[in-house]
Amino acid sequence: MVTHIGKQTLRIDTPVFVAAGAAVGGKLEGEGPLRDRFDELSEDSYFGQKSWEAAETVMLRRAFDLALSKTKLPQGALRYVLSGDLQNQCTGSAYASRDLDTPYLGLYSACATMGEALGLGALLTAVGAGPVCAMTSSHFCSAERQFRTPLEYGSQRSPVAQWTATAAGAALLCAGGDGPRVTHITTGKIVDAGLTDIGNMGAAMAPAALDTLLAHFRDTGREPKYYDAVITGDLAKFGHEILAGLLREEGLDMPTVFTDCGMLLYDPASQDVHSGGSGAGCSASVFAGHILRCLRDGIWSKVLFAPTGALMSTVTVQQGESIPAICHAVALEVPGESHAEAVERREGTR
Amino acid sequence: MVTHIGKQTLRIDTPVFVAAGAAVGGKLEGEGPLRDRFDELSEDSYFGQKSWEAAETVMLRRAFDLALSKTKLPQGALRYVLSGDLQNQCTGSAYASRDLDTPYLGLYSACATMGEALGLGALLTAVGAGPVCAMTSSHFCSAERQFRTPLEYGSQRSPVAQWTATAAGAALLCAGGDGPRVTHITTGKIVDAGLTDIGNMGAAMAPAALDTLLAHFRDTGREPKYYDAVITGDLAKFGHEILAGLLREEGLDMPTVFTDCGMLLYDPASQDVHSGGSGAGCSASVFAGHILRCLRDGIWSKVLFAPTGALMSTVTVQQGESIPAICHAVALEVPGESHAEAVERREGTR
Repeated sequence: MVTHIGKQTLRIDTPVFVAAGAAVGGKLEGEGPLRDRFDELSEDSYFGQKSWEAAETVMLRRAFDLALSKTKLPQGALRYVLSGDLQNQCTGSAYASRDLDTPYLGLYSACATMGEALGLGALLTAVGAGPVCAMTSSHFCSAERQFRTPLEYGSQRSPVAQWTATAAGAALLCAGGDGPRVTHITTGKIVDAGLTDIGNMGAAMAPAALDTLLAHFRDTGREPKYYDAVITGDLAKFGHEILAGLLREEGLDMPTVFTDCGMLLYDPASQDVHSGGSGAGCSASVFAGHILRCLRDGIWSKVLFAPTGALMSTVTVQQGESIPAICHAVALEVPGESHAEAVERREGTR
Repeated sequence: MVTHIGKQTLRIDTPVFVAAGAAVGGKLEGEGPLRDRFDELSEDSYFGQKSWEAAETVMLRRAFDLALSKTKLPQGALRYVLSGDLQNQCTGSAYASRDLDTPYLGLYSACATMGEALGLGALLTAVGAGPVCAMTSSHFCSAERQFRTPLEYGSQRSPVAQWTATAAGAALLCAGGDGPRVTHITTGKIVDAGLTDIGNMGAAMAPAALDTLLAHFRDTGREPKYYDAVITGDLAKFGHEILAGLLREEGLDMPTVFTDCGMLLYDPASQDVHSGGSGAGCSASVFAGHILRCLRDGIWSKVLFAPTGALMSTVTVQQGESIPAICHAVALEVPGESHAEAVERREGTR
């Protein structure tokens, strides 16, 4: 069962578990602080393929195969695949899924797509139409030549620019079993703050993250510290600073672990990624690799995962349009602690 | 309530009604046989804008506004917008929805997106999270320059080529009220028959349509003639002929009205569209303008709407990849007649 609460949140009353997740990444991702969280890493950007686009397809498919292999499910048991990516016409997802023999739902919320996939996947699983796989990917090289300039130009990147992750994440959602539960999904509205600098995506997305986080706390009646961790997706360092400031203005007291997937994936001291990571595969791999592990290992028991996406294209930018953004939030919880107990625990650790 | 039946179908047990629909089109669409089915037609391709992309945004937004205005719903009552289009990064949808203040779910199944939007929209409405708006669009000029060649080149089109419709369709789904009900959704698998000719999309999509139609009839236990009309999306004349042949090989006896949105939108005798129409806005406008009207006017009481989409991009085509395709089917029914009565009526008219 599912209950619509407040303005934009669905409470998933039927238990929906994240039964397994898998993260696959490229070379740079394998040199970062989350290297041990990846199930598989490539030595280069090609994953044995001739093009970056084909590489992304193979990478995403590996994430799917690895996640599925961690469950006891045969592939035929899977009811839906929900997937999206940044390539024009979402071809990374379509080509990765074309021989799966599983009903396919193509999604697009840019770098927030993993939030949309987990949310709709949880809804399907809750109504008895699971298990499902939610997955997304991005690839630095295919994204650079598509959204910005061919890599061969060697363009100078702005100091606030983000690095599109070469990474994919997949998560299997089941109605039974164990693992963390998806308890709430808060679907974002599109927020366009009027920004036009595509070298500063974090700033364009921060207002969307604010909007969805405020909606989530309002709809659920929860305060931010109900969660052990609130983790946005791909605002990276500068976007996250903007969001933190906006939340302070709203008088919200965030938990100690209030961070962003784009800040977790790379080491700013040793990796030249400027503001941090981005890409639909950044939040997906950090979710499927890192966040799920922390939930399974008992480091966190309640997490709000809120990936953000910027919904422009090169054409809209060239036509002078501003950048609309979106953020979809997913609440995860290891069963066993009541709402009141969680608040008490969090208050006690202040 | 929603029940998963068979392999890839959801039966929508809670009544979900298509409360209203609206179709908006361009000049050529206004000269075709469905001209009276459109709520609004433009004199040109620009809809008062400076670019074709901005025109598509305005056209899609008009479809949304018109559909909503036909209901008694204030915009604030709308719980979700589900939208997609063919522009890179689905910007037609994002820009049309950016000031709606409504949770937004971006979808991509190419020209089958209206099927996905209606399906997921019906699911949300059935679990109490409606009303929702499902909508999609396409624009001949923005699609040509993005997928094929700039219009100024005056490229020769292949005899089996289709004409991307400049059109948008929007449908409002509500749990109460009247209008036709969405009773089943059959989500397609990706089917890649190995075809590589982007001048012949109907051939690439026909096997996907076959796969989903067979799944729908198998999952529901219905025969094709249960329906007054089975209407695929955007196979156009040549793709539809291929599908008809494939269905004959399967021994399926289709209803008298077995047609395709791409065959309905234009007049082959007077409009130079070759095989017929295509585009996410073709099936959406034919659905929201024509099919809904026929259901409301009592001409049909049971319709299977099955839009098809080709999931390639210019990049995958240039890289020599074949064309994966998908088809999502949505069963619609005017309440009042039982399954047995419908079969009897259909048999009687043989």
